[in-house]
Amino acid sequence: MTSSQFDVVAIGDAIVDVIATCDDAFLSERGLVKGSMQLLSTGGADDLYAAMGSAREISGGSAANSMAGVAALGLRAAFAGQIATDQLGDIFAHDMAALGVQFATPPLSGGPPTGRCLILVTPDAQRTMNTCPGASHELTAHALDEELIRSSTVTFLEGYLWGPEKPRQAMLKAAEIAHSAGRTVAFTLSESLCIPGRREGVLGMLESGTIDVLFGNEDEVRQLTGCQGLSDCLQALAQRVRTAVVTRGAAGAVAMSGGATAEVQAKPVARIVDTTGAGDLFAAGFIAAQCRGRDLADSLTAGSLAAAEAISHFGARPEADLKEIVRL
Amino acid sequence: MTSSQFDVVAIGDAIVDVIATCDDAFLSERGLVKGSMQLLSTGGADDLYAAMGSAREISGGSAANSMAGVAALGLRAAFAGQIATDQLGDIFAHDMAALGVQFATPPLSGGPPTGRCLILVTPDAQRTMNTCPGASHELTAHALDEELIRSSTVTFLEGYLWGPEKPRQAMLKAAEIAHSAGRTVAFTLSESLCIPGRREGVLGMLESGTIDVLFGNEDEVRQLTGCQGLSDCLQALAQRVRTAVVTRGAAGAVAMSGGATAEVQAKPVARIVDTTGAGDLFAAGFIAAQCRGRDLADSLTAGSLAAAEAISHFGARPEADLKEIVRL
Repeated sequence: MTSSQFDVVAIGDAIVDVIATCDDAFLSERGLVKGSMQLLSTGGADDLYAAMGSAREISGGSAANSMAGVAALGLRAAFAGQIATDQLGDIFAHDMAALGVQFATPPLSGGPPTGRCLILVTPDAQRTMNTCPGASHELTAHALDEELIRSSTVTFLEGYLWGPEKPRQAMLKAAEIAHSAGRTVAFTLSESLCIPGRREGVLGMLESGTIDVLFGNEDEVRQLTGCQGLSDCLQALAQRVRTAVVTRGAAGAVAMSGGATAEVQAKPVARIVDTTGAGDLFAAGFIAAQCRGRDLADSLTAGSLAAAEAISHFGARPEADLKEIVRL
Repeated sequence: MTSSQFDVVAIGDAIVDVIATCDDAFLSERGLVKGSMQLLSTGGADDLYAAMGSAREISGGSAANSMAGVAALGLRAAFAGQIATDQLGDIFAHDMAALGVQFATPPLSGGPPTGRCLILVTPDAQRTMNTCPGASHELTAHALDEELIRSSTVTFLEGYLWGPEKPRQAMLKAAEIAHSAGRTVAFTLSESLCIPGRREGVLGMLESGTIDVLFGNEDEVRQLTGCQGLSDCLQALAQRVRTAVVTRGAAGAVAMSGGATAEVQAKPVARIVDTTGAGDLFAAGFIAAQCRGRDLADSLTAGSLAAAEAISHFGARPEADLKEIVRL
């Protein structure tokens, strides 16, 4: 394997988060399941937005948040995702560049606008996400920079983009390119991939050896594997991937790799404000530590520290100096 | 005077704030004067934005912030200002509506984009503002809703809009309409109105009886009046307006009205995060209290409490329940 130009390149949704607080009644009146993510049409997003409180806009997108974290940890990160030629697209691109993440996917004109995610944060700091993916789902394999993928130690793929046809093909192509160059492919599950009708496809992808490192939360891996106990889930995943990482919210995280297992407690946080991005930043910390040659336990600790920073403020991108918090 | 439909209607910049943190060196390298506001061309704004860190976007605009505060205090507020038909314009309009502020100025197509203010917040919580006013300066008297002004107890005018010709004419027209209906006209100074070449015009407006209630900070009223001592400044202003209110940052605020004076200390804040909007929210609290018939001292206290909330977080709009903090 030749030396890498980047530590991690991610493919994911290019999205601006629109974050407002609300009470539990607001969710229940609209039939929104707390903590979930649902896709919205443009009309549905407009209706929900009109009903939402005054908001702040902060760049988001699951894998993009992870790359913000990887860059904040001092590693070389790149991102591929589809924005449109509009103001939200400009904001997304600016924030990637400002964080030191290379982002060069050309914007699309004349199609859907840049994606946005309407995030409702309840007083218990839980986030309920309502995504209008817009241009994000128009990403094609054609937009990929093959040389970038070949020259990155890890290619990180976002589960949310596995649903729509075009970006799924782009991600599978990216995995193929990465493996042909002897690189590692990581994948983060999303809730919607674990439901019947979807899970079979995801399991098939895992069985075909497409993914080396898999991230998921407890609910996701239970639904995906059909197992109840956490160790059964890990065993089931470990047969299909080299490394499986399961995040458990306040209960910490566990990982299994090459027969070894490790566990970490969640890092205490003075005040949890908004859990958006906890999983994204966990993955960032874990992957960054792995790129720096740390073992499984140290990598879980790095993930846990990065996640703790993300949930202590609104928005999923790091605000504090992550390098000071997670010393790699 | 007939009963009012609104307590306050404001005319001001319709702007989205783009807020990033930076260190002092970033300001000095670019010759930016900490705490000041400068106007930028589109090109200048693009250059500064490219150099800025990753940002959060929150609706702003001085008088619009004040109306957000007035509405949050439970009073009926309306706003007139010019947005364009673009995503930032949609964000601005949404946030006004979500806060309960009536905002019905039709957006402009084909002109400049919705205005934005690049706000750099240094570790000492001071804000340095770089405004690209865009559509905001295209507001004309034609866009005003005369009936709305006639039916509002107070018409609140923003000093930043006094510089450009079209909105200045709109504001002077609004003052005329308000006075013809026996209403009160308030005006908030801006730094740029107090420099030689501008101050003569502002003093002329004050002398002609256009303004009943004037807000300014200590620097502004010193430069405007040419007086040194604060009581001299107040005396000089009180000859021209019914009520003069001078904010003094950490030193509190003073006011003079009908020969009476009152003073308030600044409310202690656990951690000052971002001073953007302190003056805007002070004006909101003061005017809301006056609308509810409170005396000068109580009105200063209300202003001081509202300002304290605004500086405890990023962004100029209230985040906590202002009605709980300022009981009117």
